Amino acid sequence: MTDKKKLIAPRLPRGFEDRLPADISAVNAMTAKIRAVYERYGFDPVETPLLEYTETLGKFLPDTDRPNAGVFSLMDDDEQWMSLRYDLTAPLARHFAEHFQDLAKPYRSYRAGYVFRNEKPGPGRFRQFMQFDADTVGAAGPEADAEMCMMLADVMDALGLTGKYVVKVNNRKVLDGVLESADVHEYEQKLAVLRAIDKLDKFGTDGVKLLLGEGRKDESGDFTKGAGLSAPQQQVVLDFIAGKAPEENEGVSELRAMEVLFRSAGYGNDRIEIDPSIVRGLEYYTGPVFEVVLTFPVTNEKGQQVIFGAVGSGGRYDGLVSRFRSEPVPATGCSIGVSRLAHALKLTGNLGAEEPLGPVVVLVLDKEQTARYQAITSRLRRAGIRAEMFMGNTKNFGKQVAYADKRNSPAVIIEGTQERELGKVQIKDLIAGKEAAKAIADNAEYKAARPGQFECDGDLDAIVAAISELPAVAAYLDAQNPDANK
Amino acid sequence: MTDKKKLIAPRLPRGFEDRLPADISAVNAMTAKIRAVYERYGFDPVETPLLEYTETLGKFLPDTDRPNAGVFSLMDDDEQWMSLRYDLTAPLARHFAEHFQDLAKPYRSYRAGYVFRNEKPGPGRFRQFMQFDADTVGAAGPEADAEMCMMLADVMDALGLTGKYVVKVNNRKVLDGVLESADVHEYEQKLAVLRAIDKLDKFGTDGVKLLLGEGRKDESGDFTKGAGLSAPQQQVVLDFIAGKAPEENEGVSELRAMEVLFRSAGYGNDRIEIDPSIVRGLEYYTGPVFEVVLTFPVTNEKGQQVIFGAVGSGGRYDGLVSRFRSEPVPATGCSIGVSRLAHALKLTGNLGAEEPLGPVVVLVLDKEQTARYQAITSRLRRAGIRAEMFMGNTKNFGKQVAYADKRNSPAVIIEGTQERELGKVQIKDLIAGKEAAKAIADNAEYKAARPGQFECDGDLDAIVAAISELPAVAAYLDAQNPDANK
Repeated sequence: MTDKKKLIAPRLPRGFEDRLPADISAVNAMTAKIRAVYERYGFDPVETPLLEYTETLGKFLPDTDRPNAGVFSLMDDDEQWMSLRYDLTAPLARHFAEHFQDLAKPYRSYRAGYVFRNEKPGPGRFRQFMQFDADTVGAAGPEADAEMCMMLADVMDALGLTGKYVVKVNNRKVLDGVLESADVHEYEQKLAVLRAIDKLDKFGTDGVKLLLGEGRKDESGDFTKGAGLSAPQQQVVLDFIAGKAPEENEGVSELRAMEVLFRSAGYGNDRIEIDPSIVRGLEYYTGPVFEVVLTFPVTNEKGQQVIFGAVGSGGRYDGLVSRFRSEPVPATGCSIGVSRLAHALKLTGNLGAEEPLGPVVVLVLDKEQTARYQAITSRLRRAGIRAEMFMGNTKNFGKQVAYADKRNSPAVIIEGTQERELGKVQIKDLIAGKEAAKAIADNAEYKAARPGQFECDGDLDAIVAAISELPAVAAYLDAQNPDANK
Repeated sequence: MTDKKKLIAPRLPRGFEDRLPADISAVNAMTAKIRAVYERYGFDPVETPLLEYTETLGKFLPDTDRPNAGVFSLMDDDEQWMSLRYDLTAPLARHFAEHFQDLAKPYRSYRAGYVFRNEKPGPGRFRQFMQFDADTVGAAGPEADAEMCMMLADVMDALGLTGKYVVKVNNRKVLDGVLESADVHEYEQKLAVLRAIDKLDKFGTDGVKLLLGEGRKDESGDFTKGAGLSAPQQQVVLDFIAGKAPEENEGVSELRAMEVLFRSAGYGNDRIEIDPSIVRGLEYYTGPVFEVVLTFPVTNEKGQQVIFGAVGSGGRYDGLVSRFRSEPVPATGCSIGVSRLAHALKLTGNLGAEEPLGPVVVLVLDKEQTARYQAITSRLRRAGIRAEMFMGNTKNFGKQVAYADKRNSPAVIIEGTQERELGKVQIKDLIAGKEAAKAIADNAEYKAARPGQFECDGDLDAIVAAISELPAVAAYLDAQNPDANK
């Protein structure tokens, strides 16, 4: 045995992050607004656990064509494989199938929660992130899909993004019709064509044309193999993404029906538009697909303007529940990428994440008087005011005030021997003090002026009254309890 | 290939559960109240991810003496082991150590989240459950521990449990002193003595005496081996748990200091009491330990009255951060077992979990008119009213109304050909209808009376006005937006 212990490095696995107060409060405000919209649409909350049997989740990762890649799995002690959910849809399908007999149908529910992808992380790309989904199971008609698109639009409005987004809608059956017309039948070639269409935003028509043909070389010289279509085949696809109407089929008529619903419910083309280049998940969706994109530029951490991609999406997935039940079960849903959207809003300064107002700090000037300091602290708390007695090393007065400053405290309360004998306390308004300090250039003058500091009667009620009148505290109390002063 | 597909059983792994609307809404209300208390005490939110390096979490399961048993682990693709967090304290210690330089010290933060135990599940014992913790890192004095106890008491009051709980406090150093006095030095024997003391609630003094000596046989005949103390050794321990003051030591003086703080801050013995039988985690805590217990009887699902145990707990864990840093870092914290407390409140009918009010359902009587039905639905939503157009199979009118009933809808809106031609809609108030139905015995009479049904102008604003006046809807709108009518 030796006294030298081996220290463990405090660190997180790649692609995981801690969340700090300003971010938590901003995201909580976001999810509250999303929840309110989902509830107004008639959805009720239902939550599933984070682990499920791997078999139950299935090979339905929506945004990858590598089946079952990217899942965190572990074996239970009865040797059955379990996985951390990679989205909120597969568990919902399991829940619906498990409780089929008891549920009102159509079954309409929503849930927010973390999902996990065992993938290579990158900037803004985490292995744990939050989604907020709503699903309607047991509704076959395009009304149910149209409703999801309108709800995504309403969510964006509720988040203060009016005029800054568009919901783009397409239908996989339309794409299937185009593949048919272009004489593309082989599975891998179909995927290659869909992937090419999906890149319209990124590479433009010329880039898509290359990807439909032999392939495309990017700036770095990397070559992406194309779908290998002939020139006439390419033209069919290019005509389609140029908006030239494809032949009438079920997908087209569903899109028309959805468009009628959008317009009659007051959603214009500026909020929800039909866009033939929307593909979404390759294996997952069976009918309408949609995504909501931001229409303003996003500049990343490196100062580069980036195409941010979808912050919410969804579509019809008629196959997912059918895995559990012999009869067909139609289903549609939408998902907001909460972490992703928050990231975009943070980059553009739209997240509104402010440091929370810190607690009033009761300084400890005399260790024998902690009972008195505790009594002041408890009385402030009872009045709804954030407060704490200083808990650290009390030897250095300056460090106690510096702590309060770092915590964004509105004030410190000072009761030394002299104040106690006089039955008084000193209150230092840190916010007023900082303002005043800006106007006082000289340090000696600043110290003499003691800006923001004032004396108050040492009676507990008097202290509460004085602290409650500080503007930042008054604003905090009002925000906590808006009815109190009415 | 065959058409017969193999169906997958929709089921959850043992010890995991789905959460339904009433439970979610009750637990959300609970966590909001806990959060408000923690914030008033000056704690700020910080969240860590659900997965951490196994090495980082360490062997510190608080409530078991089997080190590292009961953790869900998996290997990352770089062959490092990761685990799902089993509590919220070990990740907090990692976060603090990782960001040591940047954090205000003492570091005071709170977090709610799911934790995972890979253990045998049982009634009310799940493998995923929610905890809500607060911690002060870098505060060595008993004031920081005392504050945790007061905060636990305030949380219970905030949850409406005034007079129905007590926070019990002890100190591991006192227990260490007793072990010393009783001449118990060997590690395994120490554990056995502490485990015996921990069983006072369950088996009484006589049971503890047996466990301190040779052992105890329970009703079923199972024998638990005792600590093997001699009669005089046993007496030292029994005197201690009978409240006879042990010799003065550091633990005793810390308890005295805490008691002074409790009383001066207005917390009487009925809310926070010193209890020498409180042990808590065996390896984890280094000083004050405390737990909050319910003082009312709880009857379980089988109708048996049970000792429910702690619904919250905490203590000083000076060793946990020191694993990452060479200098000593004192720390203390508390944890509310949210899932556990919710379970107790559910069993005793105190959870207050009500079915949420469902959406107004706009029935679909004519598939050609979905645009009109959608317009009604969207207009209601814009007025803040939960509403949906019926999305299922529309052939059967009765099934549409039955769906609305099952969703706990306040009303359905009916517009058939006849109503449309007259420019009217029928509104069926389902709540008034159910009330009226109770008074009408005869089915034919009931159908003729159409209780709760009334006609309304088909204008969208008129429909919103009529629906808003339904008592359940008015109450819902008022709850959503309490300032609207003031």
